[in-house]
This record gives sequence, structure tokens and C-alpha cells, in this order.
Amino acid sequence: MDKINSINNSNNFKNMKIAIVGLGVIGGSYGLGLKKIKCSEVFGVDIDTDTIKKAKEMGIIKDGATNGKEILGDIDLIILAIYPKLVVNFIKDNIDNFKKNVIITDVTGIKMPIIKDVEILLKDLGDIDFIFGHPMAGREKKGIDFASDEVFKGANYIITPTARNKLQNIKIIEDLAYSLGFKRVNKISPEFHDEMIGYTSQLTHALAVALINSDIEGRDTGKFIGDSFRDLTRIAKINEDLWSELFLENKENLLYSIKKFEEELNKIKSSLEKNDDGQLKELFKQSTVGRERLEKN
Amino acid sequence: MDKINSINNSNNFKNMKIAIVGLGVIGGSYGLGLKKIKCSEVFGVDIDTDTIKKAKEMGIIKDGATNGKEILGDIDLIILAIYPKLVVNFIKDNIDNFKKNVIITDVTGIKMPIIKDVEILLKDLGDIDFIFGHPMAGREKKGIDFASDEVFKGANYIITPTARNKLQNIKIIEDLAYSLGFKRVNKISPEFHDEMIGYTSQLTHALAVALINSDIEGRDTGKFIGDSFRDLTRIAKINEDLWSELFLENKENLLYSIKKFEEELNKIKSSLEKNDDGQLKELFKQSTVGRERLEKN
Repeated sequence: MDKINSINNSNNFKNMKIAIVGLGVIGGSYGLGLKKIKCSEVFGVDIDTDTIKKAKEMGIIKDGATNGKEILGDIDLIILAIYPKLVVNFIKDNIDNFKKNVIITDVTGIKMPIIKDVEILLKDLGDIDFIFGHPMAGREKKGIDFASDEVFKGANYIITPTARNKLQNIKIIEDLAYSLGFKRVNKISPEFHDEMIGYTSQLTHALAVALINSDIEGRDTGKFIGDSFRDLTRIAKINEDLWSELFLENKENLLYSIKKFEEELNKIKSSLEKNDDGQLKELFKQSTVGRERLEKN
Repeated sequence: MDKINSINNSNNFKNMKIAIVGLGVIGGSYGLGLKKIKCSEVFGVDIDTDTIKKAKEMGIIKDGATNGKEILGDIDLIILAIYPKLVVNFIKDNIDNFKKNVIITDVTGIKMPIIKDVEILLKDLGDIDFIFGHPMAGREKKGIDFASDEVFKGANYIITPTARNKLQNIKIIEDLAYSLGFKRVNKISPEFHDEMIGYTSQLTHALAVALINSDIEGRDTGKFIGDSFRDLTRIAKINEDLWSELFLENKENLLYSIKKFEEELNKIKSSLEKNDDGQLKELFKQSTVGRERLEKN
């Protein structure tokens, strides 16, 4: 056992008071996961009192409040499960409410813009440690009613450490992710995170949206689909407020991914136009190899 | 019970001798399905003797041969589970081997070019009835080892009737599809079939291939994917021989679908370039409504 691990034995998240901020589908899923691993000191912050009531009935929070001030003074670990721009607002609004040495983490799908803003706010507050995290799991539905910790099982989790982060706190967030069922925790730079997510997550959503939107009215399409169309369009059912933020905050990376994608689609088009079955087969072989490599991961 | 139904009572596919031509993943799946519904008079044709042996060991065929001549004289119903171009060749090669009043069906993902060629061959042979079918189910793997009748469960099945087809024979193929577990059998024109399939199946595969192929080498992408990327790229593992045929034989429809798709992708791009979150949200709302309509089908 290395030095960091031995420090952390006395600093396990299971002994901490935890607050989930935003009891939507993801915050609720964290709540269910924490309940399953017997974290009982879990509190909630949500603007909607009915949601807080429901979370208490579900047994995933001990108590809740509609604003941070009422409960944050006691909280050791805060999980922000709110929209990207609200993360920055929440830090700003609660800068005087945090407990000393609090650990904060988030679930946001983009990192660079948020980290930039948060680090400015926390510049002179060395005891507040924000470990930026991204659970690569979600559902197409909104709200606590659709919460499920099953979505975390076997999923990827990303941490984008910053120079301010304490190693033992990164370790705590990593432990939390594994305890919730994530298969793998990868630590990468915020820049690389946003580049990768522009491709694996945002481009993918853009394609699903454009695919559904390019249907022609009145064709009764549902009668003529197979699993492939079903799978490719599942995520076309999309939370427009969240995803417009994610897309616009990462637009350079997303536009670059779209450009690379268009280059590949153009190769398919030109094979068709030239009746070039040789080129078409090469493109299919390439994608088969690429997909198989992914499965080995 | 209408007149057609009463005729068919004496003409049920379960009393027929059936031949599956091509014991690959789809032919093998038909075999497993027929076995499950207690069709015992099932025979196989495959160019590979090992495959015939395996099919016999699996109990899905009673006997098999490497060419049609040996067994077709006795067969009432032929299921052609072979590549599109081979369908036409098979009819040509066996034109003198078919039993009188034989029913032939296929599993091909495009219809117009095949129907055109087959109908020319059968022009003066009124007793041979080819009912063109398309089971919208498949797997990403090739060969009898990956056969599974589970893929048919709840799937869509399409029949594209032609003027030559006898109503009672169409009914037999429809009954067969429902018996194998298909949820819905739709009858549409070959023209509309190829238009729809250019969109729901072929465009979808083109996007998955281009998505995988647009990855940048050396990024270890598998560590940074969620279910959406996994689902959208599953079909990028693709049988290059089969799909290059399907794409090229239906290229006008596919190119048109790609064009419509590009128009929608361009709307997303222009929203990003103009920082137009209003337009982006409208596109997301449209895709959400479109996807929900599909689920109701």
C-alpha cells in the first residue's frame, strides 16, 4: 500500500457527509448508488421541493433544502449534478457557505470552459478542492423518476485533474466512481477530454439528431426499421437545454469532429458515384477493424 | 374467415418440404426458427460441405446438398438466404429443377434490381411464384455459428408483392414470418421498399462506418465512450461483400438519403457557427418528437 492510500484510509468518502446538488436523473442515480453502498449521510439540494420530498421518500437523502446555504456548512463532499453553466453559478453563490477542506465534484460533459471559470473563483481559496469528473453514463429521460444507478455499471468515468487538486482527493473521487460500479476511471487533461467528447459523445448525438430530422413526413417510418436504426436514433430524444449548452461550449471541437466525419462520408459518396466497389469494401474493412479494436478496450 | 384463409388451410407451410439455400447467419437463423416451430421437412443447400454437416448436427436440416439440382425437385417452399446477386444466378441455374407450383422467397435487403431480373427469368413460368421478402433483422457476424432465431423476435418483416404473386402464396409467407416471431408484416411496393431502406438501413450503416472511420489514430478511444457511441457504431462492423452490393444496387436512393441527412447536419453546423442556441434547441425538439413518434409505432 502506497503512501497516498494510507492517508486515504482515514479519509474515505463513506465516512463523509455528502450533498448531491440537483436531484435530476443523474443526481438521483448518484443517490440510488450511494444508498446501495450504504452511504447514509447524504443530503440533497434542489430548487424543486417536490423533488426533495420524492428523494426523501426514495430513501436516497436524509434531508434536503432548496438552497445550499442551509446545509453546506456541514458537508464534506459535494456532487454537483446540474447543468454546466449552473456549476459556476453555484460556486459563486455559495463561496461563503462551504465547509473548510470541502471536496467538490461535478458530472459535466465538457470541462475546459467550466474549469476556467471555477478556477478563477477559487483562486485564493486553497482549501476548497474541486475535482472535475465526467461519468460517461446517462439516460434519455429527465427527472428523478428516471434515476437508476444501473447506468453506471461497466461505464467509463473520466477525471480531469488540475494543478490545484490534492492527490488524496482525486483518489477519493476515483474510489467513489469504482464503488458506484464504473468499470474504468481515466485521468486526462481537460483539453483532451473536450476533444474526445466532441467526437465520442457530441458528434454521435449530432448524427442521431440529423438522421431523425432528415426523415420525410408521412412515410410511417417505424414500420420499416431494424435494430440499427433504433440504436442509432435512441439518443435523438435529447434534452435540448442541456445539449445546446454542451454543444455551444465545445463548438470548436465538435465542428472539427463534424468536418472529419464529413470527409469520411464523402468517401462513401464518391465510391457510390463512381460505382467503386473496391473502395467501398476498403472503407467497410477499415470500419470493421476500428469497431473490433474498440471492443477489445 | 375469408376465402383466402380457407384456401390456405390446406396449404400451410408446416406441411411443406422446405429448402433453405445459403446456411449462413440468416439461413441458419431461419433453420433454428423452423426447428422451434416443429417444421421437420427442412433441407439445406450450401456450397460448403462443412456447413451442411454442421446444420445437420444442429438438427436444423434433415439433409443437404452443395447444389440445388439434387433436392429441389421435391421442395414446395424455397428460402433463399444468399447475397443479392446470387439470387438471380440461383434462379437461372435451377430453372429446370424446381417443382411445379413451388413458392420461392428471399431475405434480400434491396428489391427493385432483383425483382426486375427475376421476373424476366420467370416470365413464361407462371407456376413458379417468387414472393419477395425482407426480414429486417440481422447480426454483425457471418456464418452459421452465429445463427439465432432470437433476432426475428419483435422485428419488422416486409413483403413487396408483384403482379405475378398469388394471394394465397403471399399469405403463406406472411404466416411463416409471424410464426418465426416477427411482430409485423408490411406489404409495400418494391419502389417504396428501396426508398425506405435507403434511409432506415443503408444511410444508418453509412453513418456508423463514417463515424468509426473519422476517429484519429492513437487516441485510445475505447476509454472515452459511453453507450451512445457503442450503439451507433455496432453496425460499423460490417460484411463488406454483402453491403457493397446493397449500397451500389440502391445507390440513387442512398445518395438521396445522404443528401437529406447532410442538409440537417448543416443546420446543426450553422447553429454552432452562429452561436444560435435557439435554432439548436428547435432541432433537438424536432428530433425528440420524431424519435418519440417512432416508439409509438
